[in-house]
Amino acid sequence: LDAIGEAGIGLKDIQFAAVGNSMAGLITGQESVRGQVMLKEIGLGNIPVVNVENACATGSTAFFECWMAVSSGYCDVALALGVEKLFCGDTARSGGALASAIDVDIEGRMGFSFLGWYALEARSHMEKYGTTQEQMAKVCVKNHHNGCLNPYAQYQKEVTIQEVINARSVAWPITLLMSSPIGDGASVAILTTKEVARRYTTKPVFIACSELTSGRILDARKPDLPGLTELLAKKAYDKAGIGPKDIGCVELHDAFSPAEISICEDLGLCKKGEGGRLIDERKTEIGGSIPVNTSGGLGAKGHPVGATGLAMVTEVVWQLQGKAGKRQIQPAPKVGLVQNGGGLVAGEYAADAIHIMKR
Amino acid sequence: LDAIGEAGIGLKDIQFAAVGNSMAGLITGQESVRGQVMLKEIGLGNIPVVNVENACATGSTAFFECWMAVSSGYCDVALALGVEKLFCGDTARSGGALASAIDVDIEGRMGFSFLGWYALEARSHMEKYGTTQEQMAKVCVKNHHNGCLNPYAQYQKEVTIQEVINARSVAWPITLLMSSPIGDGASVAILTTKEVARRYTTKPVFIACSELTSGRILDARKPDLPGLTELLAKKAYDKAGIGPKDIGCVELHDAFSPAEISICEDLGLCKKGEGGRLIDERKTEIGGSIPVNTSGGLGAKGHPVGATGLAMVTEVVWQLQGKAGKRQIQPAPKVGLVQNGGGLVAGEYAADAIHIMKR
Repeated sequence: LDAIGEAGIGLKDIQFAAVGNSMAGLITGQESVRGQVMLKEIGLGNIPVVNVENACATGSTAFFECWMAVSSGYCDVALALGVEKLFCGDTARSGGALASAIDVDIEGRMGFSFLGWYALEARSHMEKYGTTQEQMAKVCVKNHHNGCLNPYAQYQKEVTIQEVINARSVAWPITLLMSSPIGDGASVAILTTKEVARRYTTKPVFIACSELTSGRILDARKPDLPGLTELLAKKAYDKAGIGPKDIGCVELHDAFSPAEISICEDLGLCKKGEGGRLIDERKTEIGGSIPVNTSGGLGAKGHPVGATGLAMVTEVVWQLQGKAGKRQIQPAPKVGLVQNGGGLVAGEYAADAIHIMKR
Repeated sequence: LDAIGEAGIGLKDIQFAAVGNSMAGLITGQESVRGQVMLKEIGLGNIPVVNVENACATGSTAFFECWMAVSSGYCDVALALGVEKLFCGDTARSGGALASAIDVDIEGRMGFSFLGWYALEARSHMEKYGTTQEQMAKVCVKNHHNGCLNPYAQYQKEVTIQEVINARSVAWPITLLMSSPIGDGASVAILTTKEVARRYTTKPVFIACSELTSGRILDARKPDLPGLTELLAKKAYDKAGIGPKDIGCVELHDAFSPAEISICEDLGLCKKGEGGRLIDERKTEIGGSIPVNTSGGLGAKGHPVGATGLAMVTEVVWQLQGKAGKRQIQPAPKVGLVQNGGGLVAGEYAADAIHIMKR
């Protein structure tokens, strides 16, 4: 209702909804028609509702859906809702639900987990490029600082490099503070055509591109292929006619802090192997040349799975519109990028999404 | 792989996939990235994969998605996959998963079930229009007969009116034989543009429209509103520029046999209240004027939830192409219709879909 209010539209204007939720089936027992059950609560029915899922990229998938529905001319006004309830008084149940975002018959039975995957990726980065645990901790410190400026963040508390490094090790080099928390949350984006948008706002944000992909079927004999996000970013920049140097703010998928370093490289914000230097030189801070995760990122803002991708979109839209309050980049950026990855199948993200927005 | 083979395309031609599955989270524990896990098995990755859910209308939702992706120009070739595994050696677990397709906090806690809803609708039809249990049994007999002609049907066994009526009553007037069974299954449709289709086939089937909606927020003081399917059918006929008299074959959602009678009316195949007469006069048989559920319908062909809508599409495509074997309508119809409803929220289908196809 906040989003509909902010957009200034009525319930009756909404012609299509994509609802992203990843784990209600395993947490609350509600499967199959989750979106209809939720939208009923605000009195919204009698429109096409598609319930979508793509693990941690679920919210982005709902966004992609609505972008497709509007850009295809199927409808004029579409609502993308991402929502997740992970708290249920039983951490093992929440953890089990999160683990359903990998291939449960293969990686699952092997006992392989997201945490393990992110830790392996982080160690590989350290080995190849000399990245340090301290640089990873700096990402965490920056994002927790940003979280303090975001009233919607789950954690609004500063941390120090030493606190991050000394926190309980969960899978070296990842410590507890470098890990995104379990949390509840929801986020919404309302998408429409240029023409309709002009009726409601003088500060429209345009979608330059919305790209979604799934992981490749990799060949173990070719370990040095470019990463999925790197390839997707190239495609997104091509489609949008925008390059990494044009980007003024980025929300990216720091499910664990080290990921921010390598994803900055994948997005072309710096050269391969220089992600550690980027954080050392403070370029990704709010006052830096390319602020990253001004919302606090997944680690501090939180990571309610189905909502995450849309919360990233929301942050970028607010930054572009100059509505980001205490964490506003000055002057407001003209172009922003969202990268949202999710799931794990056969050694890569099962789903990866990039959206580029501009004003 | 059968579908890809029949289409004559290669894996590399597929640019987008929508995967419909409704209950794996509760049956096998695989949530979130079900499509990627499945498509990996055939070596398909690195394309946008959207996992969709809409209870019993899940397969139709995957179809709608692909229709949107191709008709929008987003891609040229899209794969819609619907799949369900309901057998798990624990009927209570399967039943529980099926019950997750209603609002579990409201209808669920009340103990209200699909069966109860369909029985109430059937009794209301009997009261309003004098429809009899025998007429409902005739639907079941017809569909089981059709199932005998379909090598893909779960049940390939004739039943008699007396057997149907004398079967165990599960919610009067519905008996066990009038109920769709628990089953596993999968179905696929490959959608493409006219131009591309002509490269691969001389018998293309065109999508005249694909319509999806969700239930309304009803007002108990207005009990005599037209039904959701009735309204959706009007919209679909308008969009397609096709009327009920043009339709040569129909696959519709007979989750329980009585539903076929009222849905025939909703689709305008006969007047309101005359659905019973339609089956008495044998018009919906394969040799009749408007054959319905030539596949055997949900009751005999089976109802693997996520696959059902796409299995309906497949049957209509085969009928239009003259590929329906022993159950082929002669001459092959020129226009066919699919109606696929699913879930229950606030007293109506949570999702309802109609696709009209023509050659």
